[in-house]
Amino acid sequence: MAMPQPDPEPTLPSCRALDAADPLAPLRAQFELPPGLIYLDGNSLGALPKAAAPQVQHALQQEWGRGLIRSWNDAGWIHRAQAVGDAIAPLVGAGPGELTVADSTSINLHKVLWAAMALAPQRAGAGSPRRRVLLTERDNFPTDRYIAQGLCDLLGWTIREVEPWGGQGAEGELLAALTEPDVGILMLTHVNYRSGALHDMAALNRTARAAGVLTVWDLAHSAGAVPVNLKQADAPADFAVGCGYKYLNGGPGAPAFVWVHPAHVDAVEQPLRGWLGHAAPFAFDATYRPASGIARYTCGTPPILSLTALHAGVQTLRAADAAGGMAALRAKSLSLTRTFIDASRGAAQAHDLHLTTPENDAQRGSQVSWGCGPTAPDGYAVMCALVSRGVVGDFRAGPGPGQPDILRFGFAPLYNTHEEAWRAAQALAEELARAARHGGAAAVRPAVT
Amino acid sequence: MAMPQPDPEPTLPSCRALDAADPLAPLRAQFELPPGLIYLDGNSLGALPKAAAPQVQHALQQEWGRGLIRSWNDAGWIHRAQAVGDAIAPLVGAGPGELTVADSTSINLHKVLWAAMALAPQRAGAGSPRRRVLLTERDNFPTDRYIAQGLCDLLGWTIREVEPWGGQGAEGELLAALTEPDVGILMLTHVNYRSGALHDMAALNRTARAAGVLTVWDLAHSAGAVPVNLKQADAPADFAVGCGYKYLNGGPGAPAFVWVHPAHVDAVEQPLRGWLGHAAPFAFDATYRPASGIARYTCGTPPILSLTALHAGVQTLRAADAAGGMAALRAKSLSLTRTFIDASRGAAQAHDLHLTTPENDAQRGSQVSWGCGPTAPDGYAVMCALVSRGVVGDFRAGPGPGQPDILRFGFAPLYNTHEEAWRAAQALAEELARAARHGGAAAVRPAVT
Repeated sequence: MAMPQPDPEPTLPSCRALDAADPLAPLRAQFELPPGLIYLDGNSLGALPKAAAPQVQHALQQEWGRGLIRSWNDAGWIHRAQAVGDAIAPLVGAGPGELTVADSTSINLHKVLWAAMALAPQRAGAGSPRRRVLLTERDNFPTDRYIAQGLCDLLGWTIREVEPWGGQGAEGELLAALTEPDVGILMLTHVNYRSGALHDMAALNRTARAAGVLTVWDLAHSAGAVPVNLKQADAPADFAVGCGYKYLNGGPGAPAFVWVHPAHVDAVEQPLRGWLGHAAPFAFDATYRPASGIARYTCGTPPILSLTALHAGVQTLRAADAAGGMAALRAKSLSLTRTFIDASRGAAQAHDLHLTTPENDAQRGSQVSWGCGPTAPDGYAVMCALVSRGVVGDFRAGPGPGQPDILRFGFAPLYNTHEEAWRAAQALAEELARAARHGGAAAVRPAVT
Repeated sequence: MAMPQPDPEPTLPSCRALDAADPLAPLRAQFELPPGLIYLDGNSLGALPKAAAPQVQHALQQEWGRGLIRSWNDAGWIHRAQAVGDAIAPLVGAGPGELTVADSTSINLHKVLWAAMALAPQRAGAGSPRRRVLLTERDNFPTDRYIAQGLCDLLGWTIREVEPWGGQGAEGELLAALTEPDVGILMLTHVNYRSGALHDMAALNRTARAAGVLTVWDLAHSAGAVPVNLKQADAPADFAVGCGYKYLNGGPGAPAFVWVHPAHVDAVEQPLRGWLGHAAPFAFDATYRPASGIARYTCGTPPILSLTALHAGVQTLRAADAAGGMAALRAKSLSLTRTFIDASRGAAQAHDLHLTTPENDAQRGSQVSWGCGPTAPDGYAVMCALVSRGVVGDFRAGPGPGQPDILRFGFAPLYNTHEEAWRAAQALAEELARAARHGGAAAVRPAVT
């Protein structure tokens, strides 16, 4: 059953009709959602799957409490990270054994960027000029830029930042920059955390590959929400990392994932040489020999309780396979974000809010960001008011000139509904009107996480 | 109430008398221990504290499920790693705000070794010869050596390994090696994972400091079992890391801890620049600026469920404060290991097993390792037989020439008893006798974790 087209002028009845026709609707019951709360922050922390509590409790009381040290073998702890990786792999177009779960997104990015810097001369080819430029966007997620800056400083590379694309027209600037002869690596977040703009991964991979440039993708805001095909035949990616606690619903600080194209996973090492990445972890060899395959991207002992919750989250997401999988999730996600855009547009425009997120479906991830113009009410106060009435999105201050404060609303197609999108839009309209009546921008903006 | 001296010829009644006089005895009831099991592997994975299940369940169902993203502030997730660090700090002689919890022991070691390599020229002093040698022991824990090898290769340092000390006499070789003019860093595990030998941290720190050498300590097998004074006035350490899932009872793969002497924590950076180590994590700055203090040793988002279990484990250990704290735990630990050594010595010697662990109390951690001589029964088979009858220690194959296979028994003074030590010794004697009757060494030794 395919999703019907959203109503361009959404009403509560038309949204309810879309929910009634939604093949994924039954999956909402897999989550523990607080009654009455409209949770539109699953792009920051996914909701609690009902499977998580019993599975974590089992890991804690039976596996740890009863099995103790024997559970490394008997309960399969030693294989759990790879089992979760194998469950994530199809969501991003990776094969079994190619993607594993370890550490945090930041640390995994450090590993793969290091590896990419080591591999770049091979990709560029013999006789190629020395390539020591890492290309990225100016508004890529800060931790990605911090990690990249650290490695560039260390290994003699330079970061080149193009202006954020933001989904306006074709990705001309990035594509042109990719062919400059000193570029060795393209590092991008697939879906931008602020704008929600979705890069054309295939086009960028294809151009990068033709130009001898390696691609490193952060899938934090796409895995589980947007189809990803890391091994597309004519345009494969080279490295990818992603987050466990957003659309994969793995719980706060869930371990992250890492993928390396199997064609070169064994060609280079990563720098964090822990015992679990050793070819024979239990041999206690004096000398490090990296495991073959993606196992070499593991380091120390994984946090089993958090890993078990992530397993429950990924299994919960994979339950959508029977209802169309990622294609169905993507169709619903676009319908939800389209509905929210259309339902909130009038009030937003009346209060100098501007859509930061691309309208074009092909360029939109699973979130909607309204940017605050100069005469808009204070965005932080508006978001606090929304949260206090049970509509949870988040606020992101503009990080620099020309980048507005944004009100960000993430839509998780596994559990959000069109009715929620409609109600959230009504609440936004009401709070914008209220803020405009009272006027004034807040001078102090405490952190909203 | 102090611990009476252990009986040099332990009997069941004398062991029960020691348990009856044990001021820490009531704390065993804080743990979920499988009935009938004698668990002597708390040095590999600590037992389950009763507080862990309700606290993790609360974090999962209330904080994650109900509070969702708001729990970063409302439930204090953002401060939890530091709160757990502050609870660990007094166990190792660190002050509040000086020690934090993050990532794994391996990754934390990578951070502090990097920092130590950056700081070493300052410590050595102006005009000092170039020091690029990292001094360690040949049988230091493999992951520590792998991490060190990786950084030495990268940053142009060399590893120098002295023969394992093993608690035989004074630490002459290490102390002599420390004063060689090219040594810049001493990296040691405080209690050796194989022998259980306990280094004289104060003597080594004092000599290192006088020689201009920085010290980096791995406290994996000492935190929670052996008193540690990282800031001893005349002999402070420089860097330390440690494990959350051994004597701190934090659960499988619990996050690890990291400490840097406050005198130089702000002098250098660590290489894994994640957003949580930034001076203003929520400002989303374009450029990395490290936080001041130990917060700069954090990187990505911590795994909250595993961190919460660690919090429960550390709180459970800290309940010993009221019964004498680390001094009482140390006295009981020595009494337990002494009892086990004395109760198993006769059978061990009769079957060519030799004590790998120092007899001298001042040089013994909280474990007892029996090394297998050439005519001993196959150690792996003996340990399997012990585990199958409910006496859980572990087996470690000899990693190289002159290093025997060992049967390893860890004693956690928070929950193990003298009666368990006595019963384990009886079981060991019986299994050695049985193995000797049947003869033969196993040709294949699968991994025992």
